[in-house]
Amino acid sequence: MLPAVDGLFFDIVHALDCSCRYCQEGMRQAGLEPSRESDRKAFGRRVLEEWIQEMSAFVRSFDPEVTIFYNAGHVGPSHRSVADAYTHWEIESLPSGGWGYLHFPIAIRYARTLKRESLGMTGKFHTSWGDFHSFKNRAALEFECFQMLAHGAKCSVGDQLHPRGRICPVTYELIGSVYRQVEEKEPWCAGATPVAEIAVLTPEEFTGERIPAPSAGATRILQEGRHQFDFVDTSADLSPYRVAILPDGIPVTGALGEKLRAFLNAGGAILASHRSGLTPEGDAFALPEWGVRYLGEAPYSPDFILPSGAIGEGLPETEHVMYLRASHVRATQGTEVLAETIVPYFNRTYAHFCSHRHTPSSGQRGYPAITQRGSVIYFAHPIFTQYHENAPRWCRMLVLNALRRLLPQPLLQVNGPTTLIATLTAQETENRWIVHLLHYVPERRGSRFDVIEDVIPIYDIAVQVRTLRPVESVRCVPEGRTLSYQSAGGAVQFTVPEVVGHQMVELSFRE
Amino acid sequence: MLPAVDGLFFDIVHALDCSCRYCQEGMRQAGLEPSRESDRKAFGRRVLEEWIQEMSAFVRSFDPEVTIFYNAGHVGPSHRSVADAYTHWEIESLPSGGWGYLHFPIAIRYARTLKRESLGMTGKFHTSWGDFHSFKNRAALEFECFQMLAHGAKCSVGDQLHPRGRICPVTYELIGSVYRQVEEKEPWCAGATPVAEIAVLTPEEFTGERIPAPSAGATRILQEGRHQFDFVDTSADLSPYRVAILPDGIPVTGALGEKLRAFLNAGGAILASHRSGLTPEGDAFALPEWGVRYLGEAPYSPDFILPSGAIGEGLPETEHVMYLRASHVRATQGTEVLAETIVPYFNRTYAHFCSHRHTPSSGQRGYPAITQRGSVIYFAHPIFTQYHENAPRWCRMLVLNALRRLLPQPLLQVNGPTTLIATLTAQETENRWIVHLLHYVPERRGSRFDVIEDVIPIYDIAVQVRTLRPVESVRCVPEGRTLSYQSAGGAVQFTVPEVVGHQMVELSFRE
Amino acid sequence: MLPAVDGLFFDIVHALDCSCRYCQEGMRQAGLEPSRESDRKAFGRRVLEEWIQEMSAFVRSFDPEVTIFYNAGHVGPSHRSVADAYTHWEIESLPSGGWGYLHFPIAIRYARTLKRESLGMTGKFHTSWGDFHSFKNRAALEFECFQMLAHGAKCSVGDQLHPRGRICPVTYELIGSVYRQVEEKEPWCAGATPVAEIAVLTPEEFTGERIPAPSAGATRILQEGRHQFDFVDTSADLSPYRVAILPDGIPVTGALGEKLRAFLNAGGAILASHRSGLTPEGDAFALPEWGVRYLGEAPYSPDFILPSGAIGEGLPETEHVMYLRASHVRATQGTEVLAETIVPYFNRTYAHFCSHRHTPSSGQRGYPAITQRGSVIYFAHPIFTQYHENAPRWCRMLVLNALRRLLPQPLLQVNGPTTLIATLTAQETENRWIVHLLHYVPERRGSRFDVIEDVIPIYDIAVQVRTLRPVESVRCVPEGRTLSYQSAGGAVQFTVPEVVGHQMVELSFRE
Amino acid sequence: MLPAVDGLFFDIVHALDCSCRYCQEGMRQAGLEPSRESDRKAFGRRVLEEWIQEMSAFVRSFDPEVTIFYNAGHVGPSHRSVADAYTHWEIESLPSGGWGYLHFPIAIRYARTLKRESLGMTGKFHTSWGDFHSFKNRAALEFECFQMLAHGAKCSVGDQLHPRGRICPVTYELIGSVYRQVEEKEPWCAGATPVAEIAVLTPEEFTGERIPAPSAGATRILQEGRHQFDFVDTSADLSPYRVAILPDGIPVTGALGEKLRAFLNAGGAILASHRSGLTPEGDAFALPEWGVRYLGEAPYSPDFILPSGAIGEGLPETEHVMYLRASHVRATQGTEVLAETIVPYFNRTYAHFCSHRHTPSSGQRGYPAITQRGSVIYFAHPIFTQYHENAPRWCRMLVLNALRRLLPQPLLQVNGPTTLIATLTAQETENRWIVHLLHYVPERRGSRFDVIEDVIPIYDIAVQVRTLRPVESVRCVPEGRTLSYQSAGGAVQFTVPEVVGHQMVELSFRE
Repeated sequence: MLPAVDGLFFDIVHALDCSCRYCQEGMRQAGLEPSRESDRKAFGRRVLEEWIQEMSAFVRSFDPEVTIFYNAGHVGPSHRSVADAYTHWEIESLPSGGWGYLHFPIAIRYARTLKRESLGMTGKFHTSWGDFHSFKNRAALEFECFQMLAHGAKCSVGDQLHPRGRICPVTYELIGSVYRQVEEKEPWCAGATPVAEIAVLTPEEFTGERIPAPSAGATRILQEGRHQFDFVDTSADLSPYRVAILPDGIPVTGALGEKLRAFLNAGGAILASHRSGLTPEGDAFALPEWGVRYLGEAPYSPDFILPSGAIGEGLPETEHVMYLRASHVRATQGTEVLAETIVPYFNRTYAHFCSHRHTPSSGQRGYPAITQRGSVIYFAHPIFTQYHENAPRWCRMLVLNALRRLLPQPLLQVNGPTTLIATLTAQETENRWIVHLLHYVPERRGSRFDVIEDVIPIYDIAVQVRTLRPVESVRCVPEGRTLSYQSAGGAVQFTVPEVVGHQMVELSFRE
Repeated sequence: MLPAVDGLFFDIVHALDCSCRYCQEGMRQAGLEPSRESDRKAFGRRVLEEWIQEMSAFVRSFDPEVTIFYNAGHVGPSHRSVADAYTHWEIESLPSGGWGYLHFPIAIRYARTLKRESLGMTGKFHTSWGDFHSFKNRAALEFECFQMLAHGAKCSVGDQLHPRGRICPVTYELIGSVYRQVEEKEPWCAGATPVAEIAVLTPEEFTGERIPAPSAGATRILQEGRHQFDFVDTSADLSPYRVAILPDGIPVTGALGEKLRAFLNAGGAILASHRSGLTPEGDAFALPEWGVRYLGEAPYSPDFILPSGAIGEGLPETEHVMYLRASHVRATQGTEVLAETIVPYFNRTYAHFCSHRHTPSSGQRGYPAITQRGSVIYFAHPIFTQYHENAPRWCRMLVLNALRRLLPQPLLQVNGPTTLIATLTAQETENRWIVHLLHYVPERRGSRFDVIEDVIPIYDIAVQVRTLRPVESVRCVPEGRTLSYQSAGGAVQFTVPEVVGHQMVELSFRE
Repeated sequence: MLPAVDGLFFDIVHALDCSCRYCQEGMRQAGLEPSRESDRKAFGRRVLEEWIQEMSAFVRSFDPEVTIFYNAGHVGPSHRSVADAYTHWEIESLPSGGWGYLHFPIAIRYARTLKRESLGMTGKFHTSWGDFHSFKNRAALEFECFQMLAHGAKCSVGDQLHPRGRICPVTYELIGSVYRQVEEKEPWCAGATPVAEIAVLTPEEFTGERIPAPSAGATRILQEGRHQFDFVDTSADLSPYRVAILPDGIPVTGALGEKLRAFLNAGGAILASHRSGLTPEGDAFALPEWGVRYLGEAPYSPDFILPSGAIGEGLPETEHVMYLRASHVRATQGTEVLAETIVPYFNRTYAHFCSHRHTPSSGQRGYPAITQRGSVIYFAHPIFTQYHENAPRWCRMLVLNALRRLLPQPLLQVNGPTTLIATLTAQETENRWIVHLLHYVPERRGSRFDVIEDVIPIYDIAVQVRTLRPVESVRCVPEGRTLSYQSAGGAVQFTVPEVVGHQMVELSFRE
Repeated sequence: MLPAVDGLFFDIVHALDCSCRYCQEGMRQAGLEPSRESDRKAFGRRVLEEWIQEMSAFVRSFDPEVTIFYNAGHVGPSHRSVADAYTHWEIESLPSGGWGYLHFPIAIRYARTLKRESLGMTGKFHTSWGDFHSFKNRAALEFECFQMLAHGAKCSVGDQLHPRGRICPVTYELIGSVYRQVEEKEPWCAGATPVAEIAVLTPEEFTGERIPAPSAGATRILQEGRHQFDFVDTSADLSPYRVAILPDGIPVTGALGEKLRAFLNAGGAILASHRSGLTPEGDAFALPEWGVRYLGEAPYSPDFILPSGAIGEGLPETEHVMYLRASHVRATQGTEVLAETIVPYFNRTYAHFCSHRHTPSSGQRGYPAITQRGSVIYFAHPIFTQYHENAPRWCRMLVLNALRRLLPQPLLQVNGPTTLIATLTAQETENRWIVHLLHYVPERRGSRFDVIEDVIPIYDIAVQVRTLRPVESVRCVPEGRTLSYQSAGGAVQFTVPEVVGHQMVELSFRE
């Protein structure tokens, strides 16, 4: 009989590219060809999945309640098919250990859609596992733990025991200093679930990359716009969301096309960019709802967007360079062109040359840059990848302006610097929502990775939450300080006087 | 006759590695061998220098007052010998254009020691030259311009004119919005010279690198410690300084040894690390004043520093990992060991293995890590390079604690987050000093470079300035808001209520 | 006026891949794209050809009789279009200087079809040009000069003068020792033209290679078979030949197809191998006369040929391995399969393995290896390339047996070792033919190149010449020794008692 | 009990570079460091040798008479220490299978000095092992087998059986056609041992190369000079030899120096070249007997030898280029300079340039090229490596002329082309010697390897054998044709009327 244990954590569980004679035999039986890399990898994935299912069944034959997790340093779309074999998700993500500060938000925003409790796992090290006698900056540890809470996840901080078996008191004082705060915050986190209204289809489902460039750009843009969003895969139920974003390269099969059409018919809106929406063959848009016809790659690059009207709000009406090549599209009958491209005099080649980088605008209109047809807005450029490359502010603003057309009343609106992250969770059993405000700024202080060292307080942050339900009180928690607020049009507005790193605000609803 | 011009800016003026027959002939006459790369480069440098001298003489034969600058994207020790041919220094440094945010402070802190007016040059582009129709974030442009002011330099913002010759009004509104502020600040910047008390010997003199790792690390540590410092070369006059820092790899020739000994005898102090202080042969320390004997490379790495006492102030008394290999030294008679290394059980090789990274501490003392003999403190590790690699906070603290022993009363002491930069300039003709406080945080928001987007105000910054002279008033300028202050022990103390990006504080001295 | 000169030799005249602005302009005017390598090379060739035409016209404006040659170390199909600008061909070909012993026969056999006098050029060096104070072995120099004579070419032996201007007597004794023999042989060489009955289409026309592998293999096979052959390009008149060989990879356009059909209709025969005969698209044979349908690449390789009957004469009736992959063809109605392939048990892959190299024969018949339809014999394997790779004797024998079917009475038949080369030239003005017998064996004695050192005499060589015309006398020349001979069926037969390196035999025809 | 077998052939027995834990442990016990490649290889060799000893002891415990061989495709100096574990040597050497035609003579000439019966092993394949359904040219198989006989070795011809187990009759007819001849020759080969008077020290002992360039060059030169020689290692007994050759790079330790001095004192002579004779440190000659002092590398290269007198016999008295750089030596008092170098005007560098290759002779004498002191002749150039590179005839002649000074009456003198190989074996029990004359010429007919196809008979070969003993009869065997001969001065002279591939001549001694 298995001794009583709480749970089992199986570490370093990866699919392998194996050519042993058993795998070769298995591939042949499965009609796969062992000399083809893609077949070997598919088979490796299949072997892994079968093993996971078997192992969980075996464990549960002893104790059906025990927790089970198979760790691969990430949770993503490949976990969906074996989710039943897991009791929960653990997102291993040490920002200084190769994951960076973008991995955790991307992974947790997906993992939590798979209907399991989630947990974030960082380490106490300055760098990564095995970095004995190093200490993460305390502000960094705070940020990493509080960000987990803000996403509805539990916390885990890894250490490695000295071989003599002596606990390092300095480490535990460091962790303790943060966990004492977590403990105080816990009542507002227990059982909390994130509230999201935007579904971003994850390119990981198609590329297998853990941090696809379009996901990284979308995460930054939406976080800096304080939107509430999940990453989803194409098997997800879209009905809980109001907007679906298809960033840069989401192919649309027949099945996905049907799902998106139903989503639009049910009142949803879509924001798609660049090659998103093309069929898997990549030569035509799958749905007429997109409002554009695909002609190929844009003939000029870089080209320019001339923002004006609502899509250009906050931007001067002048050309803004787009460094990455757009798709060349034509608006179909009835589609509104929100912004045109302006083309350069010529592409820069050996034959034509201008200055240090690209050729300036000729002032001539080119082809559509941003279009809208009904509830679908389409960007011809890979605008999310662009933002991940070098973060042009105008790219973020164009996306956020487009979202404002599709989602005029977002769940959460917050002022303050774009370094401020804001999320929303619900404790349904407590009949309340929690607004999380996080302000920690990673800086590339050493050449290897970003660090956080300071807590820079910010003050008087104006917040508006679209609750639809009547609110009974607004309080900074756990402190308990009551905030005055105004209700109007299904939303409450209030001002948070001070955010010192992390501040939760409780919105209690009337019964 | 030359038409009346204000000045001449010769662009892209580099020494070349040339093998043309004239250069070959020149090399042979100079006893250099054209097939040897180092000889060709030396000759290229010589040709360049002669040309610069000739060209300036030629220009001045028409107008001795015209300004002259030869641009190579950098100013460094190689400019010293031809400084007379220049009227001033222009530091071309676009942080998003390959220079990064560390280049300007390193270059200006050196250039200003060459006794010429200096000017910082950035661009209005989101990336670099030729990036038509792009716009730098306004906060970034503010930071870059105000940082120039804070270092006693003038401002230059580059643009590139559209070939049609039309000025882009958006660009000039952007620049204007910052230059209007510069104009208001100008009365406190005109004729201002930086006040510094620490001289950091630049490794560039030996390696030719524009951003040597030890310089990058030293710049961050000293800026985060709010110290006032210059980079100097070995020809510099050290007498204006109270401390000289030799970061990680400054060889000490006989002449430099004499200079350093005189500096010590005159009351100066020295902080040296790793291989700094070794003779050019690299096998022995040049001066007995160093207080240590060189034995070679440390036998263990990584090893650990156990901080305690004054050198460990603010750090727990436990092992702290040092990732880079130290020099192995023995303290000579009478030298105080401020911190010992603690060694691991073994070096990690194929033969001995422990966990994911390095081997933990065995608890055994190894060899000196930090020593002091008189006014010389020596770090066995390349602590400045280490800080540039991954910014361990304990490394900065050890250096700052060591500096506190050598410089108990620094010119400027400022609280607030380490993201705050503080500098000091003097307007001798106005009989006043100006404290500059800068708070802008670059973030690696895109994968290509750091951006600054927000101004994050900070409040109630306590400042202490060692003036020695009696102060008559302390005012935030250009606003003119008077601050209350206290004088004691040759210093004044006051609190700056708010820093919104950049704040200057004027200290007027009594006549 | 040009001073009286005999001729002009322009050296090192190559087409260049040039991107200067004049060439760019020229390419654009010609509708070529300068960024495309193939366009640049085509243009370079065109520039060269125009220059050659212009230069010859210029030279001839002074003296229309002067000799003119532009040297590029080779003469090949690219010379045809500018042949008028040349007065003769000089084949620079130093076997030890990178050309090897195969270059000269390949180049001269082509050049002489362009209707100009030809000249072979070797050097007196042990290696190549500029190898001062070295001496070619005398037997090697003999072979190189006498081989020129045997191909109807004149001789040139290059030297390089010592800068002091003194002639090296040893060099001129060496050259003289050979040239004295050439002088004696001259009466039988002056005005002599090669007599050939086989035209081998040169792959150089399609690949630009100077020594294409199929040409190298064909040269060895046909020389070892003592056949009389030229290399020709597709513009050549085929009517003087009785057999055309298309070795391994000669594509057949519509025009070439017509020419070959006319050749067949006029009584010619064709031997083609592997991909020769496919259309330029490469997926079907151009002419039904080939007698085979193209199905793609052979499914097995290596596979085996089972020779039998006439095609296998001299070979045992057992499998013979063919290392290179065949074309997969099916014989069309009425085509005779001269030899089948026998296939191995399986191809050797990771999945099936047998021994050190290839899989042995399964004994199963595969697909046709050699077919004949009318006067066309087709080999499915690249048999000429194969012979160039590793010289399997069975490959040569299969080709020679096939030729015997197409050319039952070749011009020349000679016994003796395969190291013996035999050629035939005609002195029409003298009403006589000359048989050249050459016996020198290059050996890879050093690792860099082949050398010839010895003259190995051979004896009693039986010769048969198909003259059709009645012969009056057969004499060894220049010695004058008369040989007895027999005439029968349009041929004469005689025995050459001794070949010491080179022996000419004169056949005088009756008036 | 072991069933009765004739012998055991262990195939593919190599020393391995192994890092398994057992080998690591073994290395540490042996004081070797597993992370050092040279230590691992030394240990791998040691493991192999121990295993060989153990295995032979084990086999012999069952049957002390059984034959034992461990095959590694070569026999060389590393076999000496384990020779007792072998009953005989088998020299696997397929000329077309990567070994080339030089491997067998080099390997057998060494192996036979280790006092074991030897056997040559080739294959019946056109290329190498596993080349099913291919057939070596019959003349090639003859040469390979008869060459084994000529070196006193037995014959082995490898085949690979078709998996169906059927013997290929064509193969066995091929082998049979040669073996029938071997059978006839056998009475004159059984128990025959090679007779040699020159010992060439093998560079393999120092470099581990199987075909060192100096060995290849020496083999060609001595074979073409019809000398009788062995390759030996430094442990060999030199007393049976009259001359020792140290080709190009044989270092002389103290022990070897003593051995060579004893050899000289006993009447032996030495021919050494280039770096042979230097101490292992490489900066001075080990023995004053060398007659030269080492000054470093020659200042010029290429330089020239001016042959004259006896050393230049057969060569014109003019400069002959030496392509490889000589050692720079000075003749010591009493040493005769047989030939001087003549130096070029300058070395060819970017600074001085002349023509396509090297600079011609300035006519100035440089430094000694060939010296003689007593019985030691020294060549400053790596003349054996030179001959292996590109076979300059003058290099061979200089060596052979030098040998004539040291060995005025060689065992065997043969005229005829240099393609003729001549060896001498003794059948002591029969009281006779056998002269082997071999004439087969490998030609690089395909690009991959040399082939032999023809037997080119040669006639009237004059032979002189220094027998010292009175001869009773001279007969061509096995035919039995008696030759007339003359005896004079301890030698017999006779003429072999015809050599068709291989001819043995029996010299029967009077009792």
